[in-house]
Amino acid sequence: MKVNRFKENPIITPEDVTPYHDNHEVIGVFNAGVAEYEGEVLLLLRVAERPISEDPDIVKAPIVDFSNGEGELKVMEIEKSNPRYDFSDPRSIVYKDSGRAAYLTSLSYIRIARSKDGYHFTIDDTPFIYPGTERESWGVEDPRVTQIDGNYYIQYSACSAEGIGVGLAATKDFGSYERYGLMLHPENKDVAIFPEKVGGKYYTLHRPVPKGIGRPEIWIAESDNLKYWGNHQYLLGLSEDGWDNGRIGGGAVPFKTEEGWLEIYHAADKNDRYCLGAVLLDSENPAKILAKTEEPILAPEENYELDGFFGNVVFSCGATVDGDNVRIYYGVADTSMAVADLSLKEILSKLTYDKVRVNNDL
Amino acid sequence: MKVNRFKENPIITPEDVTPYHDNHEVIGVFNAGVAEYEGEVLLLLRVAERPISEDPDIVKAPIVDFSNGEGELKVMEIEKSNPRYDFSDPRSIVYKDSGRAAYLTSLSYIRIARSKDGYHFTIDDTPFIYPGTERESWGVEDPRVTQIDGNYYIQYSACSAEGIGVGLAATKDFGSYERYGLMLHPENKDVAIFPEKVGGKYYTLHRPVPKGIGRPEIWIAESDNLKYWGNHQYLLGLSEDGWDNGRIGGGAVPFKTEEGWLEIYHAADKNDRYCLGAVLLDSENPAKILAKTEEPILAPEENYELDGFFGNVVFSCGATVDGDNVRIYYGVADTSMAVADLSLKEILSKLTYDKVRVNNDL
Repeated sequence: MKVNRFKENPIITPEDVTPYHDNHEVIGVFNAGVAEYEGEVLLLLRVAERPISEDPDIVKAPIVDFSNGEGELKVMEIEKSNPRYDFSDPRSIVYKDSGRAAYLTSLSYIRIARSKDGYHFTIDDTPFIYPGTERESWGVEDPRVTQIDGNYYIQYSACSAEGIGVGLAATKDFGSYERYGLMLHPENKDVAIFPEKVGGKYYTLHRPVPKGIGRPEIWIAESDNLKYWGNHQYLLGLSEDGWDNGRIGGGAVPFKTEEGWLEIYHAADKNDRYCLGAVLLDSENPAKILAKTEEPILAPEENYELDGFFGNVVFSCGATVDGDNVRIYYGVADTSMAVADLSLKEILSKLTYDKVRVNNDL
Repeated sequence: MKVNRFKENPIITPEDVTPYHDNHEVIGVFNAGVAEYEGEVLLLLRVAERPISEDPDIVKAPIVDFSNGEGELKVMEIEKSNPRYDFSDPRSIVYKDSGRAAYLTSLSYIRIARSKDGYHFTIDDTPFIYPGTERESWGVEDPRVTQIDGNYYIQYSACSAEGIGVGLAATKDFGSYERYGLMLHPENKDVAIFPEKVGGKYYTLHRPVPKGIGRPEIWIAESDNLKYWGNHQYLLGLSEDGWDNGRIGGGAVPFKTEEGWLEIYHAADKNDRYCLGAVLLDSENPAKILAKTEEPILAPEENYELDGFFGNVVFSCGATVDGDNVRIYYGVADTSMAVADLSLKEILSKLTYDKVRVNNDL
């Protein structure tokens, strides 16, 4: 697979972003949703800010506190010597007894970057979507943007102590927006709503993370109003071996091709190496898989993909398509944004039409 | 709290149920949904059947296999010496490496029992809802029945290797029924749909089980057609100590009182002792908690509640209300069905109006 990475990658790094909070540093600007609006490419960046800690024995954890109604940033301080917690994952502080996360070590929100050429971006000074409800008090992450007529629907991970659900918001102008609450309950992520109705229904990909039975795999649901979802069907599972045997989830918003709906998704192996693959869904029934790539179409190879806050990761929340050119915007190493061009024809040529698991729910 | 247990409890035991499958034994008839239909009380029993194993070194696991389209019972045989599996929980066979369930040791389906007096039941000869899709191939469990006008909506746990989701079906006559697919994705259970619209919307309680962040707690969602659900809100959480510090979930279908919606729910402590409690929700906004019981209204005390396949459990999926009398049907020890009468006035008098956690999402 020929991957034309932009030679100036990464296109946006933490150094490019001014922290929004006092005494914080930007540690990641990644996993951006993508929109085309008034002749510009917009990246809805996930910006992760971490409170600066002067004391190496203290880990700080930011939350937006809604106990007084209005959201207010509050920075918790946890001593590393506290035997209750496990600090081994840089992203979170975990209760040792239950394995449950007690805090995240950074707060993510969504900020817009705008570009005329798709490569060089100007970043807004202030957040676009900032935690606004108790269910977002640990942050909002990994947005996807689906354009349906003049509306842009933003789907994002809404994180709080009560779980990670999927928030939905809508904007017409990327200035103001309206929240529609949680469209999916915890634990769920990696939602990508299709850009048009199919057979009279809206569809979305989603990725539940069940606890007792089942694995982090891709499901599909339907809706008639985008707010309420049901008829959940299992879509694409993990392999037993290889690059996609750990977790998989939706990536870019699916787009229409002559062969069917093409979805560029992510998969990680058991060592947390994240790659991108492609799956083709029936144009009239997106709950039916027609074909998929057996190997990744994009895997971490460059230094900026291999090293960072959480290395060995390529992760896309959006792409633009122009004729045969598929321009994939993707987060690298949970740190920065990169972009690469791939040929649609070549992606389609890599799809395998056998060995696809049949969904017997249909 | 005065609990008038029926003196002939348990009212239905495994000995009362003829196995539907050859070479199987009924090990549980419990957690029944309740409906009032044509002057009778109907219990939608969860019947659990286990393949009879002659060899103590072999554990058998039944599944309904849909790989050939039609569902067909298949009994897997797993050697107890297989180092891959943990057999310590009698209900499931678990992969040692991931803690994920590989199989259940019994297959549950739903069978109807009918009664004129509410105490003495005649059990149908054949299943009512039997696994009918790939997402039900490990069984269907713990139904609740919500009557809305002439329709009875049955919400049940749909179990398969891909997770436990919530199936929805509708019947008018408890003879035939129609499936509406999964109304909620894994991992979720303990759904109880309200029996009428409130402010123009349907509501349901549900209990997600997230993996990474959050705990098994009660949420509420809304719908305009019962099939599609959204605007998920966190409703009632665990306590840090006491009888409800392990997991909680919806129980009986909520019913209207002069004070608000009353929900009889279940909670377990960290030792898996399951009790029933009550929570009062705002009559015009069920996402708002008004009050709750601090202590259980019904706890395991009798032998048939303390001992069984999984002891120390009382678990209700339905109740009937007649004036001041609340007749709670409840599963005991994952084995049998019991019934007890409580006074509505007394339940309401036990509710505490302070110390209720405020839901700031509202």
